[in-house]
Amino acid sequence: MSEDRFTHLDDQGQAQMVDVTEKAVTQRTAVAQARVRMRPETLAMILDQRHPKGDVLATARIAGIQAAKKTWDLIPLCHPLLLTKVNVNIEPEGEDALRIEVLCKLSGTTGVEMEALTGASVAALTLYDMCKAVDRGMVIETVCLLEKAGGRSGHYRRASGHTDNSEG
Amino acid sequence: MSEDRFTHLDDQGQAQMVDVTEKAVTQRTAVAQARVRMRPETLAMILDQRHPKGDVLATARIAGIQAAKKTWDLIPLCHPLLLTKVNVNIEPEGEDALRIEVLCKLSGTTGVEMEALTGASVAALTLYDMCKAVDRGMVIETVCLLEKAGGRSGHYRRASGHTDNSEG
Amino acid sequence: MSEDRFTHLDDQGQAQMVDVTEKAVTQRTAVAQARVRMRPETLAMILDQRHPKGDVLATARIAGIQAAKKTWDLIPLCHPLLLTKVNVNIEPEGEDALRIEVLCKLSGTTGVEMEALTGASVAALTLYDMCKAVDRGMVIETVCLLEKAGGRSGHYRRASGHTDNSEG
Amino acid sequence: MSEDRFTHLDDQGQAQMVDVTEKAVTQRTAVAQARVRMRPETLAMILDQRHPKGDVLATARIAGIQAAKKTWDLIPLCHPLLLTKVNVNIEPEGEDALRIEVLCKLSGTTGVEMEALTGASVAALTLYDMCKAVDRGMVIETVCLLEKAGGRSGHYRRASGHTDNSEG
Amino acid sequence: MSEDRFTHLDDQGQAQMVDVTEKAVTQRTAVAQARVRMRPETLAMILDQRHPKGDVLATARIAGIQAAKKTWDLIPLCHPLLLTKVNVNIEPEGEDALRIEVLCKLSGTTGVEMEALTGASVAALTLYDMCKAVDRGMVIETVCLLEKAGGRSGHYRRASGHTDNSEG
Amino acid sequence: MSEDRFTHLDDQGQAQMVDVTEKAVTQRTAVAQARVRMRPETLAMILDQRHPKGDVLATARIAGIQAAKKTWDLIPLCHPLLLTKVNVNIEPEGEDALRIEVLCKLSGTTGVEMEALTGASVAALTLYDMCKAVDRGMVIETVCLLEKAGGRSGHYRRASGHTDNSEG
Repeated sequence: MSEDRFTHLDDQGQAQMVDVTEKAVTQRTAVAQARVRMRPETLAMILDQRHPKGDVLATARIAGIQAAKKTWDLIPLCHPLLLTKVNVNIEPEGEDALRIEVLCKLSGTTGVEMEALTGASVAALTLYDMCKAVDRGMVIETVCLLEKAGGRSGHYRRASGHTDNSEG
Repeated sequence: MSEDRFTHLDDQGQAQMVDVTEKAVTQRTAVAQARVRMRPETLAMILDQRHPKGDVLATARIAGIQAAKKTWDLIPLCHPLLLTKVNVNIEPEGEDALRIEVLCKLSGTTGVEMEALTGASVAALTLYDMCKAVDRGMVIETVCLLEKAGGRSGHYRRASGHTDNSEG
Repeated sequence: MSEDRFTHLDDQGQAQMVDVTEKAVTQRTAVAQARVRMRPETLAMILDQRHPKGDVLATARIAGIQAAKKTWDLIPLCHPLLLTKVNVNIEPEGEDALRIEVLCKLSGTTGVEMEALTGASVAALTLYDMCKAVDRGMVIETVCLLEKAGGRSGHYRRASGHTDNSEG
Repeated sequence: MSEDRFTHLDDQGQAQMVDVTEKAVTQRTAVAQARVRMRPETLAMILDQRHPKGDVLATARIAGIQAAKKTWDLIPLCHPLLLTKVNVNIEPEGEDALRIEVLCKLSGTTGVEMEALTGASVAALTLYDMCKAVDRGMVIETVCLLEKAGGRSGHYRRASGHTDNSEG
Repeated sequence: MSEDRFTHLDDQGQAQMVDVTEKAVTQRTAVAQARVRMRPETLAMILDQRHPKGDVLATARIAGIQAAKKTWDLIPLCHPLLLTKVNVNIEPEGEDALRIEVLCKLSGTTGVEMEALTGASVAALTLYDMCKAVDRGMVIETVCLLEKAGGRSGHYRRASGHTDNSEG
Repeated sequence: MSEDRFTHLDDQGQAQMVDVTEKAVTQRTAVAQARVRMRPETLAMILDQRHPKGDVLATARIAGIQAAKKTWDLIPLCHPLLLTKVNVNIEPEGEDALRIEVLCKLSGTTGVEMEALTGASVAALTLYDMCKAVDRGMVIETVCLLEKAGGRSGHYRRASGHTDNSEG
């Protein structure tokens, strides 16, 4: 599946945007995750907010969706593309973490894994921002690709067990 | 140092941008990190590129600087601010990781930790993008604040040993 | 024509970008309007400017076109899309108003009504900005969709008489 | 309070950004509103969502805050500035409308009324977007400045009764 | 006036944003120019448009102003800053050229020459875009700094005669 | 090849975005250049940096690629489009200049010459920014289209000799 060279460098080592002019338009999907580790008290405060109408999780979801749409502007060699779906899901994991999972879809010529990873990262940064006044020591962990489908490189699915912290 | 409530929510739990109109203008500094774990062969390829004029690390440094400047646009409740310095440093760590450290400075009324964290995250995402054709399983780990100075909340420095993966 | 649920919320009430991956590519058109109510003297000043080469209307037209192109960045759950035409027309209406009409076209999978509405709103805000030094009490009124064609939901045309202020 | 010329045009009628280099830095505040008129059933659906954790209002609040920060990019002759606070409040009004009120603050050399108006407009557009599948005929009405303080032009407060639709 | 090293590279040759945290806030001004060479018939068409209300020059002026405000986003190592004035002036020069002159002002810690140069370049590109259907061979020439005042490096004024094409 | 009217103005002289809804999707290519004239010592310093790992040229390449992707946001009447390839090449020319050549590709309905010209201009501005501390008198010269293929207007290639400075 993987190549033996950096596709974003030409043969002189210079950064370039890969040519996708003639690649086939296919349906492409990617799923990525990020995890925000925090103090149990911080998680409890967020979950309390969730019930009435606290905006912590809603703000992070929206920030993740918007960042996925801006990936082409943030990552210098990414192609601009027209995402057809972005979904950001945030769930507690154990007593001291929130886990973010972002799904991106596209009908186009390039994969959308950078969009999913960027959405997950910015949702995680937004959670940090919303909660930093109560817990400055939060850590964003294990931002990684979980699954990728469509396109020439075939279906990729991360081996199970490879997303917990000890494997990170 | 920490407060007992989410400053970004009003008393009805609604997202708001905190009022900093009357906060003092002081010099503020923040240092954040991110680590990208990869296969040893991938790291070797990047380091090989570094000698002649491979653009992998230069591209990631520039992406990190530019993202720090755009933090106010990415993180919904961040205040716009005028960074007076951004520095992105990327070094190998062990045989299978690159460690990114971002320093942001400001003379203003709000802290710059989100700018440092955003710069580190986007530099890490850019490294992933540049190398994903050879190593799809890379993981971004341990995005966290290392140090913060200036402003009302005093000097913060992360306890040593708390940035390695097992503590994440 | 209308659905009985909010398509931008999933079944848990969370914001999501609707999946348009498999929707048909068709030609789509939308027309929206906004009206800026002002003092008759203010309108007279603008119209005087129009003859020689005053830039008030030109600036508003350009701002409206550019905003229509940025709709995906302003409205969180809008899909990015490639407008194939934007036209902004501004005409006086009676003695004390300017009426803005924006036409957007697309060959794609999503409607362009938000683009037309956003273009009309930002053109109206720009008129306000250009004239606020002489008339702070201007009001933007009756921003609404006039017509929409293409796509699954069929042709929509606003009932006549429903765009004046009393119907607002 | 008002001037007798368009400050954004030079003496040849050409658009220009007004010189504020030597204006005093003072605290400035502006409050603006927008109203979204809809069918009573649509309002009822939104308010139902509000209880559990529906994201309609949260999404609109965040879109309004982010748009206020981008005003300099949307309105061609607005100065860039560093908002120190943005607050977006959305409340039902009667049986068939939501009323948005946006407060912006700044310590700087230019007023923030365009930021408040832009925030209110984009929050209203976002409500439209979230609900258009159930009610295409919604209308954004009466986008106007309610109050403005700080700066050379003194305190402005809209006469009462002048924000309802019949006065628009 | 000039230094003997690239201030935007650290001692390892890596790109960095220069630290301006402790620089004095002073009033700063820069004037830059660009020239667009075209066929005499093209110039005649543009000038004809100028009389009634043709938008060619107005569009270029607005594009130049907006680009000056976005310089920090376009030029990777530029600091964000708050321009207090931008003026774009476009005049015919001889029979076959338009000359653009952009003035930028700031009360801040960094010079604004990049803002003036960026504004001039984008105004020139916009003229090209507006006219390319009639004259694809237009050339943008002699984009350069004319004058710079304020700040540590003192007053700079380009030697006369050094902006015509033969000196370029 | 050229038309006898400005396609970006309607018959009243108002700026408009041309309708490309029904144009054919074809492969399109454009190549543009810019040249930065500087003192021989400045060029020598840049080329010295090139060997170890100086980031001057890498930063300009990346800025050019990113600006090409943002052309729709910079040039008011450009259509948004999805570039499938951008390549920025920078080479010394003689003893006192760097020459930038930008190639853009697209499978779409509009030409990409503005993207190539914008990429070349911003790469040139970035070189200026990186080097201005040592050479304030640098001049950006001869920004022009070299070649354009695909689309209705046929193949365009600039006559040889028409890109040197004396022809500007």
